[in-house]
Amino acid sequence: MSEFKLTTVEEFEAATERLLETGAKVGADSWQLRVKNQTPHCKFGESGVCCRICSMGPCRITKKAPRGICGCDVHGIVGRNYLRFTAGGSATHSDHGREIAHTLHEAAADGNYKVKDPEKLLRLAAEFGVETEGRDIYDVAHEVAEAGLMEYGKPFGYQVFTKRAPEHTQEIWDREEIRPRAIDREVSCALHMTHMGCSSKPEALIRQSLRAGLSDGWGGSMMGTEFSDVLFGTPREVETEANLGVMVAENVNIVVHGHDPSLSEMICEYADSKEMIDYAKSMGAQGITVSGVCCTSNEVAMRRGIPMAGNFLQQENVVLTGACEAIVVDVQCIFPALGPLSKCFHTKFITTSPVAQMPDSDFIRFNAKTAGENAKQIVKMAIENFKNRKPELVHIPDMKQKAVVGYSVEQIEKKLDGVTNTHVDETGTMMPLVDCVKAGVLRGAVAMVGCNNPKVRPDAAHIELMKKLIANDIILVVSGCSAQAAAKAGLMDKRAKDLCGAGLKRVCELVDIPPVLHMGSCVDISRMMVLAARIAKDSGWNISQIPLVGCAPEWMSEKAVSIGNYVVGTGIDTYLGVEPYAYGSEEVDGLLKGGLTDWVEACYTVEHDIDKLGDMMIERIEEKRTALGI
Amino acid sequence: MSEFKLTTVEEFEAATERLLETGAKVGADSWQLRVKNQTPHCKFGESGVCCRICSMGPCRITKKAPRGICGCDVHGIVGRNYLRFTAGGSATHSDHGREIAHTLHEAAADGNYKVKDPEKLLRLAAEFGVETEGRDIYDVAHEVAEAGLMEYGKPFGYQVFTKRAPEHTQEIWDREEIRPRAIDREVSCALHMTHMGCSSKPEALIRQSLRAGLSDGWGGSMMGTEFSDVLFGTPREVETEANLGVMVAENVNIVVHGHDPSLSEMICEYADSKEMIDYAKSMGAQGITVSGVCCTSNEVAMRRGIPMAGNFLQQENVVLTGACEAIVVDVQCIFPALGPLSKCFHTKFITTSPVAQMPDSDFIRFNAKTAGENAKQIVKMAIENFKNRKPELVHIPDMKQKAVVGYSVEQIEKKLDGVTNTHVDETGTMMPLVDCVKAGVLRGAVAMVGCNNPKVRPDAAHIELMKKLIANDIILVVSGCSAQAAAKAGLMDKRAKDLCGAGLKRVCELVDIPPVLHMGSCVDISRMMVLAARIAKDSGWNISQIPLVGCAPEWMSEKAVSIGNYVVGTGIDTYLGVEPYAYGSEEVDGLLKGGLTDWVEACYTVEHDIDKLGDMMIERIEEKRTALGI
Repeated sequence: MSEFKLTTVEEFEAATERLLETGAKVGADSWQLRVKNQTPHCKFGESGVCCRICSMGPCRITKKAPRGICGCDVHGIVGRNYLRFTAGGSATHSDHGREIAHTLHEAAADGNYKVKDPEKLLRLAAEFGVETEGRDIYDVAHEVAEAGLMEYGKPFGYQVFTKRAPEHTQEIWDREEIRPRAIDREVSCALHMTHMGCSSKPEALIRQSLRAGLSDGWGGSMMGTEFSDVLFGTPREVETEANLGVMVAENVNIVVHGHDPSLSEMICEYADSKEMIDYAKSMGAQGITVSGVCCTSNEVAMRRGIPMAGNFLQQENVVLTGACEAIVVDVQCIFPALGPLSKCFHTKFITTSPVAQMPDSDFIRFNAKTAGENAKQIVKMAIENFKNRKPELVHIPDMKQKAVVGYSVEQIEKKLDGVTNTHVDETGTMMPLVDCVKAGVLRGAVAMVGCNNPKVRPDAAHIELMKKLIANDIILVVSGCSAQAAAKAGLMDKRAKDLCGAGLKRVCELVDIPPVLHMGSCVDISRMMVLAARIAKDSGWNISQIPLVGCAPEWMSEKAVSIGNYVVGTGIDTYLGVEPYAYGSEEVDGLLKGGLTDWVEACYTVEHDIDKLGDMMIERIEEKRTALGI
Repeated sequence: MSEFKLTTVEEFEAATERLLETGAKVGADSWQLRVKNQTPHCKFGESGVCCRICSMGPCRITKKAPRGICGCDVHGIVGRNYLRFTAGGSATHSDHGREIAHTLHEAAADGNYKVKDPEKLLRLAAEFGVETEGRDIYDVAHEVAEAGLMEYGKPFGYQVFTKRAPEHTQEIWDREEIRPRAIDREVSCALHMTHMGCSSKPEALIRQSLRAGLSDGWGGSMMGTEFSDVLFGTPREVETEANLGVMVAENVNIVVHGHDPSLSEMICEYADSKEMIDYAKSMGAQGITVSGVCCTSNEVAMRRGIPMAGNFLQQENVVLTGACEAIVVDVQCIFPALGPLSKCFHTKFITTSPVAQMPDSDFIRFNAKTAGENAKQIVKMAIENFKNRKPELVHIPDMKQKAVVGYSVEQIEKKLDGVTNTHVDETGTMMPLVDCVKAGVLRGAVAMVGCNNPKVRPDAAHIELMKKLIANDIILVVSGCSAQAAAKAGLMDKRAKDLCGAGLKRVCELVDIPPVLHMGSCVDISRMMVLAARIAKDSGWNISQIPLVGCAPEWMSEKAVSIGNYVVGTGIDTYLGVEPYAYGSEEVDGLLKGGLTDWVEACYTVEHDIDKLGDMMIERIEEKRTALGI
C-alpha cells in the first residue's frame, strides 16, 4: 500500500486552475469570474437592512432613514429577512422529503421502487401508529407514506418525530412554543408573519425561525432521510472514492447532481446493467462511470459506494474535464451556469424535476411511475453522446482519495456494539461512545455540515478545521459538501487516524472507523439529531450538555440557515464561518449570538477567522466537559 | 336632504395636512416624511434584478455582471423574486383563511362564536361531502371546518372550490398544470422552486406564480370568505359612513384595523353592550364609537354597517386626530409606525395576534376560546384611556360620506331577482346583469381592488378611474382599500348614480344600488371570482369573454400580486398602476404583459398614467364586446 498523504487544498486549486485554462479556451464562464463581477456585494443586502416585502419600497435603513415607509425599524426588517431565509430553507428540505414520501407511496413489489429496508418501515409504522400485523409490506408502506404526508398539512397537533427527542428538549419546545405544527403550515405562517404590516418584533420573528427550522429538522428532513432508507436501504459502511479523479477518461461519464436520490438511484441501477454497458462498449467506450456532485452524490455514495466527483463549488469542474457525457440533475444547488457551460462542451445538461427547470438544458421529466424509462433514456443519451467528445479538451485531474462512508445511526450503533463487552453491557446503545467521552479519550464531537461559499477559501475551512479537531481528539460527524471536502482530502480514509490525537486514534483503531464519519446528505443532518437524542438518553445528559457543537464554516444556502435553526433549537451551539444577512440589527444579531441560549440552551457564533473558529469550538467543548465534571 | 357632492382628493389632502400639523407639534413621524427619506428607491430592487436567495451574494445584474455567482441570469432572478412575492401574498391570505377555519372549528351554540348563516354552512357541507342529515349544526360546522383545513395540507388532489369554475376554466387549469393542490404545498413548492439552484426558467416560475395565486383565490381566500360568512353572516345591503369624520369627539373611539374579522366582531359586540356604554359614560364619554381601517373595517362594515374611518394610508391619521383611545389590530398592513406614533398621543396601540407582534404595543393575545374576555378587556382599556386625552390635540376632520355596502354575491343575486320578471324568467341567476350587458345598457364591469401606495397620489387613482368608468356605463365591483376610497369620496352613495352614464344610471335606479358595489375585504375578491363564474355559466360565455377587467391602480402588498395572479389565472385581464418588481427582465415582463394570454386567456397591463389606464380598460371592454358581437 502506498504511503498515505492528504490531498492539500493547494493541490485542489492547482487542478482547478488547469481546468479553468480549458474553460478559457472555449470561452466558458466560471464562478471564479462571476465572483469578481459581483463584488463588492451590496452592504444593505448583506447586512439584512434592505426590505422588498411590499411595493412601496424597496426601503433601506440608514442613519438618514432609520425606518422604512411603513415605519418598520431595522430590527423588524432584519428579523423578517432572517425568518424568510429560514422559511426558504425549511420549505426546500421538506419538499424534498415530501417527494420521497410520494415515491414511497408509489412503491410496489414489481414497481420501479421497492421497500429495501422493511425493518425500518416497521419501526416507522409503529411511530405513526400504522397497523402492521399480518399486512402486506406494501400496504404498510403506503399507509406510512400517507401518515408522513399528513405531517405536512395536518390541521392539528405537532410533528410526530419530535417525540424522538429527550423529555427535556420537548419541554423546552413546549415552553418556548416552538414545537412545530404541520411542516407547510410553519412555512406559510413564516411568510404571513413577515408580510407587510405583520410582525416586526425580533423575538417573534426569531422564535418562528426556530419553529420553522425544527419543522424541517424534526419533520421534513427527517422524513426525507427515513423514507429514503426504507426505499433505498439504510446506509452501511462502504468503500468509495472522492475527487475528480474518479471520472474515467475511457468510460462514458454520467454525473448525478442535486439532492433527491430517487433519480440517481435509478440511473445507477441502469448504468450498471449489462445492456447499457454493452451499449456503451458498442459506442467505443470501455464502460460507464457514474459519479456524483453535491448531496445526490452523498446519497448514492452512502448506499452504493458510488464515487464522489466533488462538492458544490466543483460542479463546473466536472464539465470542464471535457469528459462528462451528461450531468443529470434533480433539485437544489444546481448552478444555472451549467446550461451555458455545457454548451461549450459536448456535455448534455439534463434537468428532470418540475421544481428545477433551467434554460439551456434538456428536460426529461422524471416521476416515480416512469422512473425506469426515464433513467434508461438518460443513460442512453449519455452513451450516445460519448462520440461527441472533443479529445483535445479532455483532461481529468489525476486526483482522488479513498473513503469509507455510510455511517447512519444504525451503522454507528453496530460499530459500537462491536466494542461492547456483551457479558457486562447492553448492546444497541451509545454508551461506548459516552464512556469514551467521559473518560476523556474523546474530548467531544463536532457535527460539521454545509456548503462551499466563495466568501471562504473553498474546502479549506472544512479541511483545516477537521484536521485541527481530530488532532485534539474531537471526532467529526459530517454531511453534505463538508463530507465531500473531507473525502477529497483523504480524511475519510481509515489511515487518517494517524492525524488524530492519541485518544481518537485509539478509538478509530478499536472501532475500525475513520475519524471523520460521513452521515450523508444535508437532509441527513436529521440523523445527527437522532444521534444526539440517543446520546442524551443513554448518558442522562441533556442534549445541550453533551460536549458537542455544530459547525458550518462555508455555508451558503437557505437550507443551511434552516438547519442552523433546528440544530440550535435542539440545544446544540452552532459555529458559522459566514455571517447570515442579519448583522445589520443589534437586536437580531444579539438574539442569534447569545439571547437564544435563554430559550433553547444554545446559540450561534460567527467567526471569519477559521483558525479562531476552531479554537472557539474546542473551548466550548471543554467548557461543557467542565460543566459535566468530566 | 342636502345636495350631494363627492368629497375631492384635494379635500382629503387638506384634512391630512391639518392632521400632520398636529403630528409636527408632538414630534410624530409620518409616512409622508419617511417616503422622502426612502426615495429614490434602489433600482436594482425595484426592477427585480437583485438576488439575496443565498449567502454567496447578494448579486445584482448589470451590464458588467450579467449573471449571479451561481450563473443565474436576469430572467431567472426576476422570475424567482416574482414567484416569492406571490408566495408571500398567497400564504398570507390563506393563513388568514386558516384562522377563520379554526375559529369555525371552535364555534359552539353557547360559545364566543356561533353559526350565523346555517344555510351557507349546509351548502359548503354539500361541496365538501360532509353529511348533514339529522346532524347538529355545530357537528356539521366542525366537520366542514376540518374539511376546509384539509385543503391546506391534503397529500393528494386539488382545491375543492376550483370545481366552482366553469368547465372551460377548469380545462385550462388542467392543461396548463396550474390547478392548485394543497394550499400550503403550493407555497412551499414556490419557495423550493426559487431556492438556490432550483428553477431559473421564467416559464416555470411564472406558471407556479399562477398556481400559488389560484391556491389563494380559489382556496385560502375563498375559505376565508365563506367561513366568515358562516360565522358572522353573509353580507346584505347596509348603510354606513366613511372617512375620518365618523369618529366622534365626545365618544370613546376604538379603531379596529387589520384583516381578520374574528377579533373585530367581538369588539363590536362588546362596545355595543349596555355594560360597556354605561362604563364609558361613567368615564365622561357620551358613548363608544367603533370605526375601522383597512379590511377589518370592510369586514365589519359589510356585516354590521360599522363606519370606515379610512384606508391603508390613512391609518396614521386616526391616531393624529388625538381622539383615538385605542387602535386595535389583528394581522396584515398594520404600520409598525403606529407603535411610536401612538406614544406621541394617549392612544393605546393594541396588538392581538401571535402572527403580528410589534414593538411599542400592548399585546393582548387573542384566541377563539378566550375571545369574549379579550374583547372586553380591550374595550375597557379604551374606555379607561378616555381620560388621558389631550384636548388641545383633538381634531377630527369634519368629513364623511354616506355609503351603502354589503354586496355579497348572494345580495347581488337578490337585487337582480328584484328586477326579474318572475312570470317569464327564472330567479337566482345573473341573467338580468348579462342582459344589460348584452343590450349595451351596461358596457361591462371593472373589479377594482387593492391598496394605496405612495408611488401613486393616494386614493386619486381609485376615485378618478371609478368616475371615468361609471360615466362610461361601466359598473364597478370593488373591495379592500379601493372600496374605502370610493366610500370616502361618496361613490357608494346611491345618489352617485347622477355621475353615471345614462345606461348605468338607469340600472342603478331600477336595481336600487350605487354604481360602485362594495364586495368586501381583500379575501373577498374570491366573491368576485364566484360572481364571474356565475356570469359565465349563466351567459354561456367563457370568463375571459365577459366584458370585465380587473384593476389595482394603487396596489402595494404581496397579497395584491397573489390576487393579480389568480384574477389573471381565472381569465380576467388585470390593469395595474404600479409596476411589480419584475420589469428588469424582458422575458418575465413579456410573459406577464402578454405571454400569459396564451396560457390563461388574460394578462397584465401596467400603466402609470392613470387616465390612460382608464382608457385602456374601456378599450379592452369594448374589444370584448365586439368579439362577442354585442
